[in-house]
Amino acid sequence: MRLFRSASTTAALIVAALLPAGATTADEGMWLFNKPPSKQLKNKYGFEPTSAWLEHLQRSCVRFGGGGSASIVSADGLVMTNHHVGHDAIEKLSTKDRNLLATGFHARTRAAELRCPDTEVQILWSIDDVTDRVNAAVKPDMPTADANTARRKQMTLIEAEQEKKTGLKAEIVTLYHGARYHLYTYKRYTDVRLVMAPEEQIAFFGGDTDNFEFPRFNLDVSFFRIYENNRPLTCEHFLPWSRSGAADGELTFVLGHPGRTQRLFTLDHLRFLRDVEVPSILRKLWRYEVILQTFAARSDENARMANGDRRSVENSRKAFSGILAGLHDHVLMKKKADDEARVRAAVDADPEHRRQWGDAWERLSKAHENYRTFYERYAALEGRRRVLRGDLLSIAQTVVRMAAEKSKPNADRLREYTDSELPSRELELYSTAPIYPALEVLRLQAGLSFLAEAFGYDDEFVRKALAGMSPRQRAMQLVGHASRLRDVAVRRELAAGGTAAIAASKDPLIRFVADVLDPEARRLRTRYEDEIESVERDCYAKIAAARFAQFGEDLYPDATFTLRLSFGPVRGCTDPDGRPIEPVTTFAGMYARMQQRGGTYPFNLPPRWTERRSKLDLDTPFNFICTADIIGGNSGSPVVNRAGEVVGLIFDGNIDSLVWDIAYDDRQGRAVAVDSRGIIEALRKIYDADALVNELLAPPPAN
Amino acid sequence: MRLFRSASTTAALIVAALLPAGATTADEGMWLFNKPPSKQLKNKYGFEPTSAWLEHLQRSCVRFGGGGSASIVSADGLVMTNHHVGHDAIEKLSTKDRNLLATGFHARTRAAELRCPDTEVQILWSIDDVTDRVNAAVKPDMPTADANTARRKQMTLIEAEQEKKTGLKAEIVTLYHGARYHLYTYKRYTDVRLVMAPEEQIAFFGGDTDNFEFPRFNLDVSFFRIYENNRPLTCEHFLPWSRSGAADGELTFVLGHPGRTQRLFTLDHLRFLRDVEVPSILRKLWRYEVILQTFAARSDENARMANGDRRSVENSRKAFSGILAGLHDHVLMKKKADDEARVRAAVDADPEHRRQWGDAWERLSKAHENYRTFYERYAALEGRRRVLRGDLLSIAQTVVRMAAEKSKPNADRLREYTDSELPSRELELYSTAPIYPALEVLRLQAGLSFLAEAFGYDDEFVRKALAGMSPRQRAMQLVGHASRLRDVAVRRELAAGGTAAIAASKDPLIRFVADVLDPEARRLRTRYEDEIESVERDCYAKIAAARFAQFGEDLYPDATFTLRLSFGPVRGCTDPDGRPIEPVTTFAGMYARMQQRGGTYPFNLPPRWTERRSKLDLDTPFNFICTADIIGGNSGSPVVNRAGEVVGLIFDGNIDSLVWDIAYDDRQGRAVAVDSRGIIEALRKIYDADALVNELLAPPPAN
Repeated sequence: MRLFRSASTTAALIVAALLPAGATTADEGMWLFNKPPSKQLKNKYGFEPTSAWLEHLQRSCVRFGGGGSASIVSADGLVMTNHHVGHDAIEKLSTKDRNLLATGFHARTRAAELRCPDTEVQILWSIDDVTDRVNAAVKPDMPTADANTARRKQMTLIEAEQEKKTGLKAEIVTLYHGARYHLYTYKRYTDVRLVMAPEEQIAFFGGDTDNFEFPRFNLDVSFFRIYENNRPLTCEHFLPWSRSGAADGELTFVLGHPGRTQRLFTLDHLRFLRDVEVPSILRKLWRYEVILQTFAARSDENARMANGDRRSVENSRKAFSGILAGLHDHVLMKKKADDEARVRAAVDADPEHRRQWGDAWERLSKAHENYRTFYERYAALEGRRRVLRGDLLSIAQTVVRMAAEKSKPNADRLREYTDSELPSRELELYSTAPIYPALEVLRLQAGLSFLAEAFGYDDEFVRKALAGMSPRQRAMQLVGHASRLRDVAVRRELAAGGTAAIAASKDPLIRFVADVLDPEARRLRTRYEDEIESVERDCYAKIAAARFAQFGEDLYPDATFTLRLSFGPVRGCTDPDGRPIEPVTTFAGMYARMQQRGGTYPFNLPPRWTERRSKLDLDTPFNFICTADIIGGNSGSPVVNRAGEVVGLIFDGNIDSLVWDIAYDDRQGRAVAVDSRGIIEALRKIYDADALVNELLAPPPAN
Repeated sequence: MRLFRSASTTAALIVAALLPAGATTADEGMWLFNKPPSKQLKNKYGFEPTSAWLEHLQRSCVRFGGGGSASIVSADGLVMTNHHVGHDAIEKLSTKDRNLLATGFHARTRAAELRCPDTEVQILWSIDDVTDRVNAAVKPDMPTADANTARRKQMTLIEAEQEKKTGLKAEIVTLYHGARYHLYTYKRYTDVRLVMAPEEQIAFFGGDTDNFEFPRFNLDVSFFRIYENNRPLTCEHFLPWSRSGAADGELTFVLGHPGRTQRLFTLDHLRFLRDVEVPSILRKLWRYEVILQTFAARSDENARMANGDRRSVENSRKAFSGILAGLHDHVLMKKKADDEARVRAAVDADPEHRRQWGDAWERLSKAHENYRTFYERYAALEGRRRVLRGDLLSIAQTVVRMAAEKSKPNADRLREYTDSELPSRELELYSTAPIYPALEVLRLQAGLSFLAEAFGYDDEFVRKALAGMSPRQRAMQLVGHASRLRDVAVRRELAAGGTAAIAASKDPLIRFVADVLDPEARRLRTRYEDEIESVERDCYAKIAAARFAQFGEDLYPDATFTLRLSFGPVRGCTDPDGRPIEPVTTFAGMYARMQQRGGTYPFNLPPRWTERRSKLDLDTPFNFICTADIIGGNSGSPVVNRAGEVVGLIFDGNIDSLVWDIAYDDRQGRAVAVDSRGIIEALRKIYDADALVNELLAPPPAN
């Protein structure tokens, strides 16, 4: 997998769950920085993280955009992440005549660094447990849906209070699916500039074919710089560079933002994933992949425009195929069933526990049975993978919702439009990133046709959405060349005008969103929140309590796209025929792989990699694998040694790690990283980036 | 479109319907040879086909394999068809070390011609109307399902009688969806040898990107030879070659086997297509296309193995996308609605007509409403596009069904296992074509996973099908390296042993088919035949009668993969921006297109096309378009002039012709053909195939 969590411009539905029952074995776990795996590290590796060590690492990490991880690697705000995490920004800085994905980019002076039109980064500054304060909003005997609403309001109020107090961005994270609420406070930066990116062809050598595989040979790295007041950010906390990298067997730590795991969903919840959600997601991905591919094949410019969508779709398709294979694995599902039976038996054996928590599984089952009846519609219009997509459509949705939400008190708003989140919405809304009408039409046409295919052409909503036109005609009308929303000034004007401006607008896309799409999407969202999410929060809180009672509190919560600490040694694995796979690859291996595949796409190399081959030390370590527990969202996570020095950069997991979405298993599953030594060698010998190398290798302050 | 009708090893569900009401306009129509468009041709073109002209053309035409058209082009049984129609045979003659798709093939002597392992061709010898005899089997007041069964039995009896009388293969074709039954008698040949095929890269230059587009530059031709008693077949009827080709505006005739059109389905039947069947087919195609692509990308050998499936899937995906766009076109659907209203109004206005036919539309609607409840399951397991696929699985299905069916009287058997059809089943069953375990596993795994995705993992049939294994494990067990059915001798032994051998077999694949798949598939087929097909036959017969009463008998039936005559002049069209597209392309245009796309796949050319460029007369016509009415199955149809000389070879339709599945429209829609002049020039200058050219240009017998 390329571990990038697809960005979502509106609220991502971040869910959390518990790890399987029993103590964690092996190197499992995506641990909270305020609840680190101290016991595990001490017992297994004799390593005791200090709070200073933890705080320094925490404040050296960066949440990048809507779905990636990164780290600060110099005192001057230099940020390292994957090329594929920076992809969106690099693409938006490209034009027909300046294709930075194809050519790569390197700013040899600070002045040459390119400001990204809508990239936001966040640094986690502090964490507080506010579980009791959040739950205090719930009155006894409140209906489940009302309790959920009350908690949501309370969360917004606490965030607002924290922001007022600190001047920083605050965000309450729901952990263990509702058992814990932690208040995360972030430093937030929106002036982010591109410093260096290699060609996509070397960043993603082997393409979709080698994605989620190992051995790998990818320079999947890019560098940005945080600016504040038009000057590079001065950073007290940043990660020094290791010149020697990590040795085979050496313990490493991965610091990043895993997006979502579903490791302790109940059995029926997993069945819902297996029979409803994942197949539905895959159907959409297969469909859109083919549509994008045929569009891209028509011309080089089409290919360039569709590049980002294609990468994202290919990656998700492989990831979800792996998850589905896990859900189709009888052995794995049997383990899940046994685990659930064990927990339920323990609860049932204690009358008080049974009274408190005993109904949670059954209530969740019923909720998901109900969810089956409207999942497709909800997922199509409001879920994270909704089918009506496109830059202009997102803009219209943001403008329409922002007007409606800003007219309400802060606590009553949709979570992604609270005062705390508005700056992020505005950054997206006023982005000057290029918008391509041909691609916009393709995306919307595909989405509209999907609705007709899925719900029938005579479905009332479909009829309204198409307004007597074919999907193509309607898409041309709404997002074709005529759309005025391409003009940022028009967006600003509409946003400034609020609900009155929306009501008065004659823009067909605004009318479509305001009159047709948004009412239906909101209706479905309310239904989801009231009938599903509220029950999940309530029941998973109970199940978590049952687990804590049975196994103790020493359990990590499922991933929530917030900062986590994983660990594990550099270690090889074996291929399906049992042959050993070495844990480290080299540049020599890359040239061999190219030759083996005849040097044709996606196994071709950028010209300078062919021309400068003889300059490289071909034995330099290039990529490596370790057992640290990661998932989509960890892309761009730094890998550090005990001294906190960068030894690598996570960019992928192997095929056996895909199932980690629902269960960690390190027999074959591995995280894949670029080696710190390979990065330096390439920067020096291929890109002549000596200044950048010097910045990376500069010694940390003496303190 | 590449107009190849996907082959189906069991009975294809051939359906037929009527053309839209009113007289045909323009050059519409796929006419029966025993009901030719004499009036239309005389009125519009002043041409009067004689019965000798018709009979000669009819007997020069060839039905090629399970889905293509072809023609006899020399007195020595030389057969011309498309490269993509011959693709299956060429692929089966290829091995890892002899990839004829990549290199092309040319037998310079008769001895070097390669016998195809399972190719069958048929020549239509005579046609008789047996409608009254078929319907005589139906007793008054018979329930619809029983009437359908009675007619099916009667058809088998008539066919057997005809075969006994003539020694030829007989097949009754259901026309107008049940209004007419015609007895077709064929000469049938199974010794077919490959004579010449160019490289796939020139046959399919531009690949999926340019498929269903024009201008085109494809040498989509291959030559085979029919043998009888180990000697080339001596043919009285064959098509002479035109040295001058067809001029712009010249009337041409297309003689071929259009597979299926759905032009006068009732409005509710079209809605069923639009909301159920076509979306379902597309979902399967998108899914399988991505699965095949990722498999093919892994190695050159994978790509070779998957080539045929990929071509077929890509082609169908484009074709069905075009059909869906038509069904989503309000204007087109409005026309259909108006037409239906007109016919129904006329029926309702006459009490006797209303009594006889008035309930047909309502009954069909109800049947299709019922069909919605089990279509997915039927289509997945028994329909033409069923999802459990693979060579070994087909073999097992044939062995199992053949044993069961042969134990019944001829008239009681499934239609594809009557005595008339058994030789074709045996040809398939004992084919020595290579079977690739990796591809077999991929196909079956994909199919098994589909069932779990579509019906849920806990579905009773899915559980039985998977037998406690994951889809991949189960596929490995059933069709992996261990399968004994790869051995033709094992198949012969099983087939010879009949039902007893099947019952005793311990082969896991035989057990899977006999115990799990076949009972469920038969149950669904019976349900389909009794509840849907029977009503369609009955009701469409009534609707046809109503149309005949209103518009006269001068209407062509929908396509049924039987020989039809279409016509229309060579004529250009315009692109979406209204710019004219010339009707003829040249070799010069091909080289320009290659250059325009940088010569990268699929716009690369085989080496000899680059090396010998200067030998070619670059102005030679290469491909052309005409308005003749075609559809999938017409691939390989000869295009002839008034003198019956070959001027071209149909291989595609443009994007605007895709909607012809439901309605002909020649404003932009065009059939696409290889020009007879381009074929000769390429054979001479690129392939040094002088003997073949001489055979093609040999003058016809003097009579």
